Amino acid sequence: MIPLPLREVVAALERLYPPDTASSWDRVGLVSGDLDQPVSRVHFAVDPTLAVIEEARAAGADLLITHHPLLLRGVHSVATTSAKGASVTALIENHIALYVAHTNADVASPGVCDALASACALVDVEPLQVLDGVGHGRIGSLASRLTLREFVEHLSTVLPKAVGGIRVAGPADAFVSRVAVVGGAGDDFFDAVRASGADVYVTADLRHHPALEAREEARGGTPYLVDAGHWATEWLWLRSACSELLRALAGQGTSLNTHICTLRTDPWDFVIGAATSDNTGGTS
Amino acid sequence: MIPLPLREVVAALERLYPPDTASSWDRVGLVSGDLDQPVSRVHFAVDPTLAVIEEARAAGADLLITHHPLLLRGVHSVATTSAKGASVTALIENHIALYVAHTNADVASPGVCDALASACALVDVEPLQVLDGVGHGRIGSLASRLTLREFVEHLSTVLPKAVGGIRVAGPADAFVSRVAVVGGAGDDFFDAVRASGADVYVTADLRHHPALEAREEARGGTPYLVDAGHWATEWLWLRSACSELLRALAGQGTSLNTHICTLRTDPWDFVIGAATSDNTGGTS
Amino acid sequence: MIPLPLREVVAALERLYPPDTASSWDRVGLVSGDLDQPVSRVHFAVDPTLAVIEEARAAGADLLITHHPLLLRGVHSVATTSAKGASVTALIENHIALYVAHTNADVASPGVCDALASACALVDVEPLQVLDGVGHGRIGSLASRLTLREFVEHLSTVLPKAVGGIRVAGPADAFVSRVAVVGGAGDDFFDAVRASGADVYVTADLRHHPALEAREEARGGTPYLVDAGHWATEWLWLRSACSELLRALAGQGTSLNTHICTLRTDPWDFVIGAATSDNTGGTS
Amino acid sequence: MIPLPLREVVAALERLYPPDTASSWDRVGLVSGDLDQPVSRVHFAVDPTLAVIEEARAAGADLLITHHPLLLRGVHSVATTSAKGASVTALIENHIALYVAHTNADVASPGVCDALASACALVDVEPLQVLDGVGHGRIGSLASRLTLREFVEHLSTVLPKAVGGIRVAGPADAFVSRVAVVGGAGDDFFDAVRASGADVYVTADLRHHPALEAREEARGGTPYLVDAGHWATEWLWLRSACSELLRALAGQGTSLNTHICTLRTDPWDFVIGAATSDNTGGTS
Amino acid sequence: MIPLPLREVVAALERLYPPDTASSWDRVGLVSGDLDQPVSRVHFAVDPTLAVIEEARAAGADLLITHHPLLLRGVHSVATTSAKGASVTALIENHIALYVAHTNADVASPGVCDALASACALVDVEPLQVLDGVGHGRIGSLASRLTLREFVEHLSTVLPKAVGGIRVAGPADAFVSRVAVVGGAGDDFFDAVRASGADVYVTADLRHHPALEAREEARGGTPYLVDAGHWATEWLWLRSACSELLRALAGQGTSLNTHICTLRTDPWDFVIGAATSDNTGGTS
Amino acid sequence: MIPLPLREVVAALERLYPPDTASSWDRVGLVSGDLDQPVSRVHFAVDPTLAVIEEARAAGADLLITHHPLLLRGVHSVATTSAKGASVTALIENHIALYVAHTNADVASPGVCDALASACALVDVEPLQVLDGVGHGRIGSLASRLTLREFVEHLSTVLPKAVGGIRVAGPADAFVSRVAVVGGAGDDFFDAVRASGADVYVTADLRHHPALEAREEARGGTPYLVDAGHWATEWLWLRSACSELLRALAGQGTSLNTHICTLRTDPWDFVIGAATSDNTGGTS
Repeated sequence: MIPLPLREVVAALERLYPPDTASSWDRVGLVSGDLDQPVSRVHFAVDPTLAVIEEARAAGADLLITHHPLLLRGVHSVATTSAKGASVTALIENHIALYVAHTNADVASPGVCDALASACALVDVEPLQVLDGVGHGRIGSLASRLTLREFVEHLSTVLPKAVGGIRVAGPADAFVSRVAVVGGAGDDFFDAVRASGADVYVTADLRHHPALEAREEARGGTPYLVDAGHWATEWLWLRSACSELLRALAGQGTSLNTHICTLRTDPWDFVIGAATSDNTGGTS
Repeated sequence: MIPLPLREVVAALERLYPPDTASSWDRVGLVSGDLDQPVSRVHFAVDPTLAVIEEARAAGADLLITHHPLLLRGVHSVATTSAKGASVTALIENHIALYVAHTNADVASPGVCDALASACALVDVEPLQVLDGVGHGRIGSLASRLTLREFVEHLSTVLPKAVGGIRVAGPADAFVSRVAVVGGAGDDFFDAVRASGADVYVTADLRHHPALEAREEARGGTPYLVDAGHWATEWLWLRSACSELLRALAGQGTSLNTHICTLRTDPWDFVIGAATSDNTGGTS
Repeated sequence: MIPLPLREVVAALERLYPPDTASSWDRVGLVSGDLDQPVSRVHFAVDPTLAVIEEARAAGADLLITHHPLLLRGVHSVATTSAKGASVTALIENHIALYVAHTNADVASPGVCDALASACALVDVEPLQVLDGVGHGRIGSLASRLTLREFVEHLSTVLPKAVGGIRVAGPADAFVSRVAVVGGAGDDFFDAVRASGADVYVTADLRHHPALEAREEARGGTPYLVDAGHWATEWLWLRSACSELLRALAGQGTSLNTHICTLRTDPWDFVIGAATSDNTGGTS
Repeated sequence: MIPLPLREVVAALERLYPPDTASSWDRVGLVSGDLDQPVSRVHFAVDPTLAVIEEARAAGADLLITHHPLLLRGVHSVATTSAKGASVTALIENHIALYVAHTNADVASPGVCDALASACALVDVEPLQVLDGVGHGRIGSLASRLTLREFVEHLSTVLPKAVGGIRVAGPADAFVSRVAVVGGAGDDFFDAVRASGADVYVTADLRHHPALEAREEARGGTPYLVDAGHWATEWLWLRSACSELLRALAGQGTSLNTHICTLRTDPWDFVIGAATSDNTGGTS
Repeated sequence: MIPLPLREVVAALERLYPPDTASSWDRVGLVSGDLDQPVSRVHFAVDPTLAVIEEARAAGADLLITHHPLLLRGVHSVATTSAKGASVTALIENHIALYVAHTNADVASPGVCDALASACALVDVEPLQVLDGVGHGRIGSLASRLTLREFVEHLSTVLPKAVGGIRVAGPADAFVSRVAVVGGAGDDFFDAVRASGADVYVTADLRHHPALEAREEARGGTPYLVDAGHWATEWLWLRSACSELLRALAGQGTSLNTHICTLRTDPWDFVIGAATSDNTGGTS
Repeated sequence: MIPLPLREVVAALERLYPPDTASSWDRVGLVSGDLDQPVSRVHFAVDPTLAVIEEARAAGADLLITHHPLLLRGVHSVATTSAKGASVTALIENHIALYVAHTNADVASPGVCDALASACALVDVEPLQVLDGVGHGRIGSLASRLTLREFVEHLSTVLPKAVGGIRVAGPADAFVSRVAVVGGAGDDFFDAVRASGADVYVTADLRHHPALEAREEARGGTPYLVDAGHWATEWLWLRSACSELLRALAGQGTSLNTHICTLRTDPWDFVIGAATSDNTGGTS
């Protein structure tokens, strides 16, 4: 069987996730590798960390597809003195091509936000906000209303485990029905969420000030907030990307091994003192 | 007994936390009130939320001292249609003066970082970094070395409880001795922490990308990271500020009632699925 | 009779003066107050000065509508130590809502420039310049030509008195027929005025350099300049705004008392040595 | 008698008004002419208008010294289609050198502000504000206190006449003793004036908003404002510059004719309706 | 015969080279002169140097038309102490109007790039790149393919001589057929040249880094580079401009003398050590 | 014999060419490689082109030291689709470390400008300009005066050959004695050269406009200009760098093979029509 040149895999990826739909500040596409090199084993991961690259190397992968860019900020050196340089060096020395689909995968359909909407079991899903003809985020409805706690407990069963768990702002027993989602860091979308009438907003990486200001604007009511973890909310997309890529390349008489990385690249290793329920008596 | 005019309380606060030591982007000092109004009851809180203002009102406070600015971004309206406007309106209608000590309290000695260093039980404490003659953050040593888990378990007992608990990146059984601390969001100080030789860095509000990049640069080793919560790490300072203010005003023949707000202004209400220990088998 | 909620007055004002027609740098709309508070007495003024707010308070007004923003530059404090803070505090303590219609009222029709064109007795009035579909300034013709002095003497009879009077650049006995007007500070429109073929340009707040450069470009000829005072040229609009608002709210079964503020908010109190005619023999 | 080369006059002017004391945005020094051309007749004026250049030409001047720059904004054409180009063309065709001393003359001692302080009859004169070692503005005291009206009436007798006269904000019968002065447009110095404790601030070209805001900050009290006219307050300096230049060149065996331009370059020709006293009954 | 006013010559030039087709940073049009002055002798040159102005003066020219702006950067002085000032002074003293057609002449058709395409003997000429509806550069084909050396030797015979000659990057014996041209400095168009499929790119003023990077991207292949000199490639246009202007003014019963300046304004006077062929054995 | 780790070579280079003396926009230091890799063969070149890297690879070099940065602009991809990516990939695949000393080598003593001054046979050499304590460029004197042609002919014998030769602006038979030099592109130093009183300025990569403007300011006189080629003027430094590095590492009991690259990285391959002397009769 003829090995597939990287050129054709890249072409398929660019049809699935057109680079011109990425945000202007983003850096997507091929980061390392040669378009003529053969590809027989593809790994998918959220972050191109050194451990992920090592896993790919050990498994003999020749293409690593990640969601997060390795070189979002331009580099002026690839010496191994920096982690970025060490990563570039490891990729090239091991002939592993790296391809990134980031904000173009966020907005694609199916894409990152669809995968999260699906994990939330939403129906009647639509874009949360349409900017310049591109739909960002998703909003949809639960088949039947749930309490906030029930909704998050469900979500917890379908997301990969990260030690921080899922943080929730809002009353556990309030009923929710309409859900807005943005995979990864979603603090740019609070205005759109408020305008959408969502009962709850599922996203990640919310800091103290934006989260508290959103709760203040809500005056204790909706939209409630669910911070489900940056890595966890985006990891869901890897399966989607894998199956879409295989479908796109089907019928070419090629054989492509794929692997979805299960290394947790959420940076936290353990948590002390988290509380399933708030028993401090305090309210924000 | 003659009531104390706000003017004198403000003068005392500006001696404790000189406004010109605040960062250039910060907005500290008197936010509402009249310098001639009498002050007899002072509340201390991390955030001037609507709930905090209501607690102060119900208790008859005439001065609220907070760490976080209410109006960090300038406002063009104080109508109650926005939460900021509703807060300003509530303060003025209830004759509550608001005073903010933020980055000037971070760098003061004793200040926010000292309170956190003390909670960590550090000795031989020094500034983490000196910029333009002002010491930022603190670094010190534990009296005897502890495992990372032991160290964080201790910290957990002295911090106020927030539902997210304390997130830790690093091996639980590694020994740590030298500790860097920055109360609140400390992601501007990673270079200084690396240069300091700290075994562990205690701060808060770390997002996925800076935390993961810091772990990648550390190649799995030190400095380990402890995210102890934005509200929790700064709340420690309120007791310090209260006692410093009382000391500064002592001997003036005045009587000042004080209260340290115990409302949790950390925005999160409950957590689902946090893990005391990492049993995913994954490593970053 | 049911009192009118502020919400409905605001809605009427936003139909008359749509906020999205304001300049991008401008800050219009509701500055203080609660949309649910009842409105029974409305004051209209050019500037929300402390004296104007005090007049409104003494008269029992619950809504003050002004042309100039109180908070054009964002504020980070409303303590009474600054005049802006004292104004905000006085408004809130006295439950007076403040609503601003500024550059959106300039371009509205009828609006500020229409009121000035009408005071100049212009016919066949059109926008001076159309930018992005919005007409700025006005240009029209006198019913019959007048000398420059006659024209300004007429204008003087219909404008409110300010101590500086009306300054004129051009020969008193030259005939004028075609008149461009921009209420308030109009030094951004010199190019449009020159292109319009106006004989005279009526505006306000012209400083030495732009006025002298405009006279140099004119080489002593047209367009002549009339600086009729910032406050005076904009005050004319208050009557228009009052009657438009009453018309907009008519038929709602409500009773609204209105008052047009007659306090002069032009800052000048007296003038020494002004000359009705130039007898210096000098020419620019 | 040997004619004086322009080079030597320029050298004397640069000793009197060092170019490096000008503001960074300013454009001072030689604007037209050749350093080797002989100079026998020098004209002094505030503004290099076409009328001023024509007066200089008619009188046979070969050097024109002005306070205001001709080319503050850089020009890309000197065609006569623009007034600036016509001025440059007239200067060169008539072999008139133009030299500008602007903000360097403002801060010089003796300079523009000294001339205004002297016209105000101030004693014990000091800089109003020292920035980077350079004194800006002046502050001093009257020999004996005067009412505000008396003070301005005196000033009116020593300033050249401009048709707008002198505008005053403050009560006519209030006594004043301490006076701050800034020749020309002085709206950058309100903070320094407030800090100086001045009773009255004499400057020029104040627009509605800065003047009204300054009066609001003063809450009706001091510092009062006197707008004495841009051209008038700076014209006073011409005599000082003329005598200083003659002194600087004395003893070189040269003969230099000088002339202080009396053309009014204030752009206004007449005023309608100015009021010596405020009889509107309004207060700001 | 009635002399032609400058106004009419300018009108004709603006029809040939509309100013609004110039680049936004460019400064084209009338630089000196009066629209009413008569024009009977016109000189054309690439650069308005002092020597060119002197040649025009000596010949009695009253209009100089150049490609390069005299005042691309705005000037704040026209004193003769700077070369720019000396040039302006010489133009005005000698009543020589200066008119500039620069980037508007580059894109005009016929214009600068057409003249260069014609010198290269190209057929089927089209714009190299169309931006905002304006065609920049040209691309066309040779009637029959030539070696790179033959092509440049031909070009050398039709360009005016400059001492640096024509520099070529590429193998002398490679065949070329498709040629892109941009008169003057063309380093902004490398991407368009690569996209066009040109075998060779004729332009000028290429520095080490952009030329070397272009050769690296080409990996030694096409597009080859020809640097034919800034002055030489633009001088070709002068004849075109002269004949177009005469055609535009024909039939007006006027007589216009024209002269194409032959002074070389390329700054270099001689060259030591240039090599017709590379015999260093090196390759880039 | 123990191989030398890269770490020690880098340390020696940073003593010779301290990175903090580089310009703020520059990017110097280690670009690829691992500090622990052994170094036994070092190549020196001006530019890290693909051909240079290939030469280094073929010779078994493990360290390439160049003057020009490979990644002056940050890269977001090292895929081989771009020349920069192909270069990075070739370096890493072949385990060649790349080290850059650029503007820090320009200002070092001995450094790039010293090597050029030495090639010009200058004596009494001093910095041309001292900025922030760092000397830029060099100025010195010839042992005896030469004609401009004689001076350049001498220079031609000591510079490596580039096909463009050396371009000269100025009269061939004028005598020169005082010489300013800046290796590489020196168009930022014209003011310093004029202030230095140099008769001739030797630098490279001068474009039409700056060179012509410099000649206009000189009004045909000194300083004359010599453009000796970017690559050629900087290549001289390679021998200096090589011997300095060997001296710095002497006595460590190590053996280091070195090679100075003789591939010409000047991008031009041949020249048609250059003229040893100007016989066009034109003058600029």
